Amino acid sequence: MLVSQILKTKGANVFTASPNETVAAAAAFLHTRKVGAVVVTEGDRVVGILSERDIVRIVAEEGAPALTKTVAVCMTADVVFADPGETVQLLLERMTDRRVRHLPVCKDDQLVGIVSIGDLVKSKIAETEAEAEGLKAYIATG
Amino acid sequence: MLVSQILKTKGANVFTASPNETVAAAAAFLHTRKVGAVVVTEGDRVVGILSERDIVRIVAEEGAPALTKTVAVCMTADVVFADPGETVQLLLERMTDRRVRHLPVCKDDQLVGIVSIGDLVKSKIAETEAEAEGLKAYIATG
Repeated sequence: MLVSQILKTKGANVFTASPNETVAAAAAFLHTRKVGAVVVTEGDRVVGILSERDIVRIVAEEGAPALTKTVAVCMTADVVFADPGETVQLLLERMTDRRVRHLPVCKDDQLVGIVSIGDLVKSKIAETEAEAEGLKAYIATG
Repeated sequence: MLVSQILKTKGANVFTASPNETVAAAAAFLHTRKVGAVVVTEGDRVVGILSERDIVRIVAEEGAPALTKTVAVCMTADVVFADPGETVQLLLERMTDRRVRHLPVCKDDQLVGIVSIGDLVKSKIAETEAEAEGLKAYIATG
């Protein structure tokens, strides 16, 4: 299964944030949209990713003043990406190695989607079930 | 692969928090220990789980005053559990269905560990690689 197939089902919509937003606004956005991360962009360029973990980190380090800081200060600038042609298996390995749970998907330097570890696991489960069904059908028909 | 086998490698150590701690203290704890969730206990009893997501939610809803609230107010009391005898595949499905990324593992009402979606994916990858190696060895020996 390729990432591009997941994006076909999930849609290419990516929630983005500006580096100038406050951490409080970004937290409210994550909560309202029920997502674990937003991609931080400047124009067309991806400049970082802001996840629940980044927010917990800045709150832990700075307390209440953290909430008025900007996303630029709090985000992870070293973004781990995915390509639409990569497989779910490969990206699960990348997530595990790099200890991230979201990968923005880029094609020709354009942001075309985002996948979470939950999206990939869901697709992997569906694939395993389809294989098992196929095998059962094959056995049943002798 | 059973959860009990993952706990053998990972260890049965579970980070816990008291319901009376502040959200600020819990955020600092998650950050320092580099974990995404702690199990909230009262004596031997599990009363909730507090994850990065819970912290983002209360910060989003209440702003800076959230940090002085107690864990009891902020935690998820409706805990989704795992049993040591359950399979990785089953628990990945449970996590996907219930949209959680951590499952405390209980045996006879005693907390014996915790597994994250990352732990389960890592184990699933190792299992898949071992199967492929086995198959290659089988083919090579004719």
